[in-house]
Amino acid sequence: MSDVSDWWRTAIIDMEPGRIAFRGRPIEELIGTLTFPQMIWLMLRGDVPSDGQARLLEAALVAAVDHGPQAPSIAAARMAATCGVGLQSAMATGINMLGDVHGGAGEQAVALYQCVAARGDLDATLQDWRAEHGKYVPGFGHRFHKPTDPRAPRLMQLVREARDGGHCDGRFVEIAEGIEAALSRAAGKPIPMNIDGATAVIFAELGFDAPLARGIFVLSRSVGILAHAWEQTQQGGRNKGPTPPGYRWTYDSSGS
Amino acid sequence: MSDVSDWWRTAIIDMEPGRIAFRGRPIEELIGTLTFPQMIWLMLRGDVPSDGQARLLEAALVAAVDHGPQAPSIAAARMAATCGVGLQSAMATGINMLGDVHGGAGEQAVALYQCVAARGDLDATLQDWRAEHGKYVPGFGHRFHKPTDPRAPRLMQLVREARDGGHCDGRFVEIAEGIEAALSRAAGKPIPMNIDGATAVIFAELGFDAPLARGIFVLSRSVGILAHAWEQTQQGGRNKGPTPPGYRWTYDSSGS
Amino acid sequence: MSDVSDWWRTAIIDMEPGRIAFRGRPIEELIGTLTFPQMIWLMLRGDVPSDGQARLLEAALVAAVDHGPQAPSIAAARMAATCGVGLQSAMATGINMLGDVHGGAGEQAVALYQCVAARGDLDATLQDWRAEHGKYVPGFGHRFHKPTDPRAPRLMQLVREARDGGHCDGRFVEIAEGIEAALSRAAGKPIPMNIDGATAVIFAELGFDAPLARGIFVLSRSVGILAHAWEQTQQGGRNKGPTPPGYRWTYDSSGS
Amino acid sequence: MSDVSDWWRTAIIDMEPGRIAFRGRPIEELIGTLTFPQMIWLMLRGDVPSDGQARLLEAALVAAVDHGPQAPSIAAARMAATCGVGLQSAMATGINMLGDVHGGAGEQAVALYQCVAARGDLDATLQDWRAEHGKYVPGFGHRFHKPTDPRAPRLMQLVREARDGGHCDGRFVEIAEGIEAALSRAAGKPIPMNIDGATAVIFAELGFDAPLARGIFVLSRSVGILAHAWEQTQQGGRNKGPTPPGYRWTYDSSGS
Repeated sequence: MSDVSDWWRTAIIDMEPGRIAFRGRPIEELIGTLTFPQMIWLMLRGDVPSDGQARLLEAALVAAVDHGPQAPSIAAARMAATCGVGLQSAMATGINMLGDVHGGAGEQAVALYQCVAARGDLDATLQDWRAEHGKYVPGFGHRFHKPTDPRAPRLMQLVREARDGGHCDGRFVEIAEGIEAALSRAAGKPIPMNIDGATAVIFAELGFDAPLARGIFVLSRSVGILAHAWEQTQQGGRNKGPTPPGYRWTYDSSGS
Repeated sequence: MSDVSDWWRTAIIDMEPGRIAFRGRPIEELIGTLTFPQMIWLMLRGDVPSDGQARLLEAALVAAVDHGPQAPSIAAARMAATCGVGLQSAMATGINMLGDVHGGAGEQAVALYQCVAARGDLDATLQDWRAEHGKYVPGFGHRFHKPTDPRAPRLMQLVREARDGGHCDGRFVEIAEGIEAALSRAAGKPIPMNIDGATAVIFAELGFDAPLARGIFVLSRSVGILAHAWEQTQQGGRNKGPTPPGYRWTYDSSGS
Repeated sequence: MSDVSDWWRTAIIDMEPGRIAFRGRPIEELIGTLTFPQMIWLMLRGDVPSDGQARLLEAALVAAVDHGPQAPSIAAARMAATCGVGLQSAMATGINMLGDVHGGAGEQAVALYQCVAARGDLDATLQDWRAEHGKYVPGFGHRFHKPTDPRAPRLMQLVREARDGGHCDGRFVEIAEGIEAALSRAAGKPIPMNIDGATAVIFAELGFDAPLARGIFVLSRSVGILAHAWEQTQQGGRNKGPTPPGYRWTYDSSGS
Repeated sequence: MSDVSDWWRTAIIDMEPGRIAFRGRPIEELIGTLTFPQMIWLMLRGDVPSDGQARLLEAALVAAVDHGPQAPSIAAARMAATCGVGLQSAMATGINMLGDVHGGAGEQAVALYQCVAARGDLDATLQDWRAEHGKYVPGFGHRFHKPTDPRAPRLMQLVREARDGGHCDGRFVEIAEGIEAALSRAAGKPIPMNIDGATAVIFAELGFDAPLARGIFVLSRSVGILAHAWEQTQQGGRNKGPTPPGYRWTYDSSGS
């Protein structure tokens, strides 16, 4: 019979009574010393980032907190807040919606950038990507923000400054700009980078694995989910559905 | 029939194509300018905190990220990571566990401190609290960290420095220390403040409503939940249960 | 150090390789023999109900499967189905909303009936209940179904038949009808029993603990949640929010 | 601006005050008339199944209710029950774990059977499946139940009886038995069908789309999740982790 104390293993935390250490560092040396983004990095990566790296991560965390209550995650959290559940449960409800379609574009964009970097041929990679995944390229274009998602240019400005300051090497800036140019050329109109494309540049430049792009996005969007769940709690309401009760949903009598 | 566009109302975000503003401030002016804790405050409160206030909030966010995989929230997130669900779903699973018992002590401690402040009589408030809620007082004592939770003294040191620097008035420092003294006196042994008691001092000093103590705790603990879910994903495993399969659970044949 | 194999204990299931037994009964003797409602009862209670008892439970399970997509649980499950998550995750999203307000009325009604039965004074119990919980009495009246929730009379007809057939003693039929009469008298207009009031009569007659009223309701409503999540999956859509994007939410510039 | 009342459409339910109909049938005609499995079918498919079809569906629903607390879904629900959340939230926690690995084998087996049926060449289909998905074939073999999962033979007996009675045509019985024989031949030892393989035969024979195999499995397993969450609630406990606190997890000091 295997030893139960080996069943779970972790390199993240070490505890004994009176002692808590993260990645080998006592918690009391981290509190008041590390910024929250530095702590996030330490937990996910095992080391403490430089100030320049932490500033980039912080910008990505700030940029994605919320995109309005029309988003399913925010709407669901607000609804949950009227159903008699705890605030943590309303938050879990919203977060649970950040799946491949709602929360996956950043992760997919990092993966795409890494493919381009590994293969060294942007056009061929892009062509294969679209053959496999369809016409939609994650990180570019926006169904609502036309002509431009206001978050992307500001984020890209910060990445370029970080590159010029030696905090990252700028390889993925170039790749993302190359994709933007290729897509716009093919479409005959601008297909500008959106927030997912821009934060993906940051995550790729900082060396994060693609799935962590989604994980960090969740940390960021959780802020908006909490803010909206709390605002709805204060507004009150019971069992608030998507539209006022007066609006009837369409019943299609032709059956399934 | 009521107007559907009035059904949801928010003061948090304002959007139109090409424009996103939080609490009236365009997002491109916030990215790279606000720290992540300042952005959290802006979203929850509507204004930007001073640097001293933001540093206190940041310390609370850093302190509570993780308490080890023995915690149900962390264990559940690691299990979920072996079940073929997305990372966001593993995170939601962990967060959904932060209920009144697992994630509520900070909120309860803020409420208790506010009761003491409102009534002005610590002993009477404490007595009534225990009559209503039982012997357990949220924020004091720890079943694992004996003699002392290492996070609390460091957090309290920072609050005292903030008070001395004029960033908060210190009223709740005094109340929490009074409760600690009263509990220890009654028990005949030290019942030291734990992390929930100390972060509750921070939240109360900063003027947060009690439920937001839980909400902000969730934001913090989400970091550990993500780190563990990701570590487990990298370790692999399929349908990992609480103990190795060799361990049998006890079947109680005496029936229900 | 405590023995890890004692850490979890159950009287529900007993397994060894090649053998699975529920409440001591081998699964191969249950499949094809018990109805699904009988199996639910066996799992929750430890014995097999009579046919008459099982029919009542079955009626409650059938009655509550769905109350339309205006309900937050159904709406959230449909939204989730457009976010790129698994069907189980869309179901969990809907179920997670069945909190005290959205899913708790049946449980509260059972508790109320049991209070009346224990105290033996309906009017006094009702008065105390409203003093503690407010004017809303769980299980009676309906904000949408006026004059009558069509499910309640049919369920009550079945309970009365079961009582007349000796399958239950009818004590809670009498209590619920007494509450309906008292509320209607006080309001000067009919306040008829709704589905939660009627299923609560069933659960109380069958001897279920009050919290299981909520649990069984969740089993029932899960059917509607699944049906709607699946219908939405087939309809398609990406990141479907509560209303069409053209509808703007109200931004309240006066701040929080 | 599109009409908000068209934004959601459903063929499942039709309501107006005092009237609820499912698939066009008034609810009061269904309560006490349909069995719960028949109601599940009506909700998912739009028509009422024959008694023979309903009995098969019922057997699948009974067979899969629980597989013991070593399963992550059950363990997580029990943990949640000690964290101060509602019963619905503990249930959502367990259900949210039934992802591709934990809850997807039945769905995958239906899809595999349908591939075999469409292509008409079992060996070629099986070979391509394993080339794409790896050596693990969903629905066959069991890591715990050796030699045989006791649920599968009983379920297959019922399907064969249904086929002989004319309730289904038996095409997928033959396919599944063919796969079992092919796998066993290739392995040089028996690789018997497990519960997922057998319920998949039922779902395929009854004409369910593959994703509904997972959905119906969730409905079934929800019963065990509820039973265990409720049993744990009655046992008590606070913040119960996977193993007793005395067991330390392994900290790997070599870092990430």
